[in-house]
Amino acid sequence: MSDTLRADGRTTDQLREVTIERGWSDQAEGSALISYGRTKVLCTASFTNGVPRWMAGKGKGWVTAEYSMLPRSTNSRMDRESVKGKIGGRTHEISRLIGRSLRAVVDMKALGENTIVIDCDVLQADGGTRTAAITGAYVALADALEWGREKRFIGQKAVPLLDSVSAVSVGIVKGEPMLDLAYVEDVRAETDMNVVVTGRGLFVEVQGTAEAAPFDRSELDSLLDLALAGTVTLTEFQTTALGR
Amino acid sequence: MSDTLRADGRTTDQLREVTIERGWSDQAEGSALISYGRTKVLCTASFTNGVPRWMAGKGKGWVTAEYSMLPRSTNSRMDRESVKGKIGGRTHEISRLIGRSLRAVVDMKALGENTIVIDCDVLQADGGTRTAAITGAYVALADALEWGREKRFIGQKAVPLLDSVSAVSVGIVKGEPMLDLAYVEDVRAETDMNVVVTGRGLFVEVQGTAEAAPFDRSELDSLLDLALAGTVTLTEFQTTALGR
Amino acid sequence: MSDTLRADGRTTDQLREVTIERGWSDQAEGSALISYGRTKVLCTASFTNGVPRWMAGKGKGWVTAEYSMLPRSTNSRMDRESVKGKIGGRTHEISRLIGRSLRAVVDMKALGENTIVIDCDVLQADGGTRTAAITGAYVALADALEWGREKRFIGQKAVPLLDSVSAVSVGIVKGEPMLDLAYVEDVRAETDMNVVVTGRGLFVEVQGTAEAAPFDRSELDSLLDLALAGTVTLTEFQTTALGR
Amino acid sequence: MSDTLRADGRTTDQLREVTIERGWSDQAEGSALISYGRTKVLCTASFTNGVPRWMAGKGKGWVTAEYSMLPRSTNSRMDRESVKGKIGGRTHEISRLIGRSLRAVVDMKALGENTIVIDCDVLQADGGTRTAAITGAYVALADALEWGREKRFIGQKAVPLLDSVSAVSVGIVKGEPMLDLAYVEDVRAETDMNVVVTGRGLFVEVQGTAEAAPFDRSELDSLLDLALAGTVTLTEFQTTALGR
Amino acid sequence: MSDTLRADGRTTDQLREVTIERGWSDQAEGSALISYGRTKVLCTASFTNGVPRWMAGKGKGWVTAEYSMLPRSTNSRMDRESVKGKIGGRTHEISRLIGRSLRAVVDMKALGENTIVIDCDVLQADGGTRTAAITGAYVALADALEWGREKRFIGQKAVPLLDSVSAVSVGIVKGEPMLDLAYVEDVRAETDMNVVVTGRGLFVEVQGTAEAAPFDRSELDSLLDLALAGTVTLTEFQTTALGR
Amino acid sequence: MSDTLRADGRTTDQLREVTIERGWSDQAEGSALISYGRTKVLCTASFTNGVPRWMAGKGKGWVTAEYSMLPRSTNSRMDRESVKGKIGGRTHEISRLIGRSLRAVVDMKALGENTIVIDCDVLQADGGTRTAAITGAYVALADALEWGREKRFIGQKAVPLLDSVSAVSVGIVKGEPMLDLAYVEDVRAETDMNVVVTGRGLFVEVQGTAEAAPFDRSELDSLLDLALAGTVTLTEFQTTALGR
Repeated sequence: MSDTLRADGRTTDQLREVTIERGWSDQAEGSALISYGRTKVLCTASFTNGVPRWMAGKGKGWVTAEYSMLPRSTNSRMDRESVKGKIGGRTHEISRLIGRSLRAVVDMKALGENTIVIDCDVLQADGGTRTAAITGAYVALADALEWGREKRFIGQKAVPLLDSVSAVSVGIVKGEPMLDLAYVEDVRAETDMNVVVTGRGLFVEVQGTAEAAPFDRSELDSLLDLALAGTVTLTEFQTTALGR
Repeated sequence: MSDTLRADGRTTDQLREVTIERGWSDQAEGSALISYGRTKVLCTASFTNGVPRWMAGKGKGWVTAEYSMLPRSTNSRMDRESVKGKIGGRTHEISRLIGRSLRAVVDMKALGENTIVIDCDVLQADGGTRTAAITGAYVALADALEWGREKRFIGQKAVPLLDSVSAVSVGIVKGEPMLDLAYVEDVRAETDMNVVVTGRGLFVEVQGTAEAAPFDRSELDSLLDLALAGTVTLTEFQTTALGR
Repeated sequence: MSDTLRADGRTTDQLREVTIERGWSDQAEGSALISYGRTKVLCTASFTNGVPRWMAGKGKGWVTAEYSMLPRSTNSRMDRESVKGKIGGRTHEISRLIGRSLRAVVDMKALGENTIVIDCDVLQADGGTRTAAITGAYVALADALEWGREKRFIGQKAVPLLDSVSAVSVGIVKGEPMLDLAYVEDVRAETDMNVVVTGRGLFVEVQGTAEAAPFDRSELDSLLDLALAGTVTLTEFQTTALGR
Repeated sequence: MSDTLRADGRTTDQLREVTIERGWSDQAEGSALISYGRTKVLCTASFTNGVPRWMAGKGKGWVTAEYSMLPRSTNSRMDRESVKGKIGGRTHEISRLIGRSLRAVVDMKALGENTIVIDCDVLQADGGTRTAAITGAYVALADALEWGREKRFIGQKAVPLLDSVSAVSVGIVKGEPMLDLAYVEDVRAETDMNVVVTGRGLFVEVQGTAEAAPFDRSELDSLLDLALAGTVTLTEFQTTALGR
Repeated sequence: MSDTLRADGRTTDQLREVTIERGWSDQAEGSALISYGRTKVLCTASFTNGVPRWMAGKGKGWVTAEYSMLPRSTNSRMDRESVKGKIGGRTHEISRLIGRSLRAVVDMKALGENTIVIDCDVLQADGGTRTAAITGAYVALADALEWGREKRFIGQKAVPLLDSVSAVSVGIVKGEPMLDLAYVEDVRAETDMNVVVTGRGLFVEVQGTAEAAPFDRSELDSLLDLALAGTVTLTEFQTTALGR
Repeated sequence: MSDTLRADGRTTDQLREVTIERGWSDQAEGSALISYGRTKVLCTASFTNGVPRWMAGKGKGWVTAEYSMLPRSTNSRMDRESVKGKIGGRTHEISRLIGRSLRAVVDMKALGENTIVIDCDVLQADGGTRTAAITGAYVALADALEWGREKRFIGQKAVPLLDSVSAVSVGIVKGEPMLDLAYVEDVRAETDMNVVVTGRGLFVEVQGTAEAAPFDRSELDSLLDLALAGTVTLTEFQTTALGR
């Protein structure tokens, strides 16, 4: 791998600078302002006692997520989805991805009939917003679960987490597999993959897309190698942020 | 692998019965009624000379797709999205997947400023609707491109296709990797993956989701093996349907 | 009447070829794929025990219908109403017509507190879609009622049908009254009428519209004569399809 | 026919009191506040030079209509369709009916590339709102056309009207055919029919619906007789209002 | 102040002709058709026993309002908000203003668990529609409360009104403060203010906006003087209309 | 005035701590993250060359604003307006207020045919979000105008600002007029007023509402005194932030 390939001087297997400002919000039960380089996402976790009606009486909890971008988080202003009166396909897709990723590490039985809504609002976007959102949302989620335990809404000694979860994008740019694509890399990528991995190194989601050129099995393998290494580092940032 | 695992008697690496009724519609430039077992999807391809305004003047074409389920395609009736007044996240996600999958095999320069809209309407659903839709849509697309060539909207000797494309679902059910999940298998799968592969065996999309349990690298590899073998067979069905 | 007036060689009092494929769907309690010539409509009847809240406790059932066209059922592609986010006036009007027509032959007291939702999805359109929908929907309805009787949701010896119902369009084209207009005839009609008639020959709906020229009483009478004769034949097709 | 059948003492072939306040609005090019008994509809006709883009260049005009009810025009308050965010089927159906009825008497060629939008807003409802709307809208339309002629947007000596048009409801209540149903009669009617007739006595629309019991040919004939007689009277009211 | 400043010959401190037609509607519990010059607003008050679920059990009532303009109430036709599928900001703002203004004079405890919905529909607009709506709505409200008292839904000897309320617009046109702006004045105003005042002369709402030029404290004072004087006269019209 | 009245120890005429982080966003032409105590609003100004079609050719610019709250900016989570599919009345009202306030200090002729869209997104809410938004938006606006001047989209030596603008809330709580209400004060206020004032001390907006009790002229005067003093201080914060 070459040190000089990337605009910001990173090596191909290097993450951007990651910061996690835990407890950013005074209002939410859990929150984190996460940045992957210039990408900044405010993640809050709202804990509510009880579950939606269609889930009641099963003794299980529910975790869901909503993702959104501020209109001027991007280089040119986008119209608000509230003004357009409908949510676009990309927003839906990412909200669903975040929700599934978090549910994969929550013990719903142990959570009991409680609901956690995760909000991931992109304040500034420079590629990798969905993966930063997942990594930050985990921190917010962990704090909201701890809050629920302290308030005795969760009748458990430990918070109902089976594992931690983080995410990173990988892609092939000019034939070269790379970790954690910034926006300028993302738009040029032949193949783009978002990988969600637990703290123990198991896959939760693998979403690879041939943006410009179909990819073969060995390329897929290289991308997975990069992603697994990257999420090891991201897990460490989460552990540090949570003071564990 | 065991022959007796599956409700319908298939082996774990066996597709359901596949049929492709090419040219089902009298109205569309290309069409196919495809079935994967009891799953039936009507795919039409509508050819329009010209492109959306935001693409005009670039000398390139556009291919897009819309997916929908009839309200009683499923075991219990779903409300229509037209009645609800908005399209759900799952519908958006699948429409986008089909569009990307087809665009991956079209030479947009050679297509010229022409638009193809693919409609995939699920008449009956029993798992695998999105993968059947992609496989059927390719047949409809090929015929619509041929129609455009005959009508001289495409100024080319050959239809502007770089490759063919087909798709299949795979998943892990009770610890066993399986090909082409029917609905009863899909709801019990620990992990579920949709794989879109070109006729030459390259990946276009890999979308794996841990529905119940995160998966490791060797499980991922087994699923990809099954999917690659399955799409070889699906490619043959497409070739036969297209009479090549 | 002249044999040579119509593009497809029919006499003015002749229906197009009618086929009714009863039980087309594996999922619905009742279903029929009906064709009037090239017009094809998939009709399903979904039986649900119980009624909407506003009807509960009255000991009466409810029958309602929804009509929709696939985007490429027509010669040029129409936008989906789900994408537009609202249902057009024509769709509303036809859905309401189908619902009223079927309710006219159901004994709501005998149905008891059960709901039947009829879905009529036009797979291919060539004129007369609303009338084909009514004729096909009756077959689906009859089977769904029979299903409800067998499952003992309906506590009756006989299915709660007062009569059968079918429908046909009639119109005046170049001064000539004609039965069962195909699309090319429909667009040229001076007057267009949809007539819904019971098996016993009573009117359920008479909807005549002067598209191009107001019509007099004798023209109205000729159109009603044609429609009454046509629905006698359609009733026979229904009886045959239902194996009675 | 019996004099004592009806709550308000009318004979079965008698209209309610009809008043037409022509030119009610200071703003519109044509307007009329019409009442059929307690039913009051404000009809305005807005004349615009030019036609919608899809009609331009054909040398023909366009007439369209929108119907709406004030939320407390009825005995119990209805939610506003603007608040619900969508227009109901009934509103769509009636708007379309009014538009078709008026177009039937306008010479679109002579109108030239001009558009008239008719608004019929029900201020108070007591049955027959759609028929009152049509009768009143004709008066507003005639004045708007005259305005367009005076302003020389219409290059014709005479206003481009082929005929006048009015409408009335008829129905069978307790087995008795009746003219111009008030709300209390309408809800009890076995059969309900709205008939739109030109000044020369030709039918524009005949919409009969068996609300409770299918009807036979002789009942249909009785209803048409009543409607034709009623519209003769309504035409006289229009002529008087227009001062001709 | 000059007598010749205004197009309609009014002095700067003079209201337009005000008429209040109390009980205009046969359907509503209270109603008034109010005019401020050519501005005409139909106000109805709908009394319902009970309150929205979120208010139940508190022993208090609820008053809310909706404002709307007929499409051709204005000089050029506006699209209907029901057709656009959403309510505009101005409509929302005015509906909220009317609701707050009326709630300020109702004793919610004395009203008990009853709801009053005020509808203000502008039949013709010539400036000052929101202020006319408030003044007229008070009359409709008073009658609906009296109706509720007579029907014993309100268990009180007197109607639960703390005061009366009326409203007027004021503005600075060409440097001159003026009362009750007509449309031609309103569009030219440098500053525009709507003032809602109780019968006892206390402020309920003061909404001043610098349309063209920021205003100073003395201009604000002049406007408030005019408004307070104007609402004294409007209160007299209300008292007369209510026959007190 | 008493020092001990307020929960946070402020005197009645004291602002909360105000901070303005100018240039918070890397993406927008102008931006500021403003806080009034715990209330935090991210304001961005997006500069676009050109104006909406309906304004083109007049040689004048356009400034508009959109306000929104993050779902968990408040103590309990609110549903997103994008998910609800419509924008609420309060949001509309505040967006319009911000837009008008900024337009009052922009010289539209000097701006030329350029558009500035202001986005004010509330990241955390504790009362006074609309007034903080206006004060912060002015800073973002000033920078965006400076950017436009440097890029020569504005053909002027100076930025086209006539004055600066800031805003503050005032209210009467337990009979005591107070400056800059925090949320706990706002909900208890008898009267609540938002005042927008230019740097020169002229009023742009005065919006006073009797939430619980109508107010008299002297109370109004006390509130205006407080607001005028408060905005003097806010203007100084703006000047400091802009480094002038």
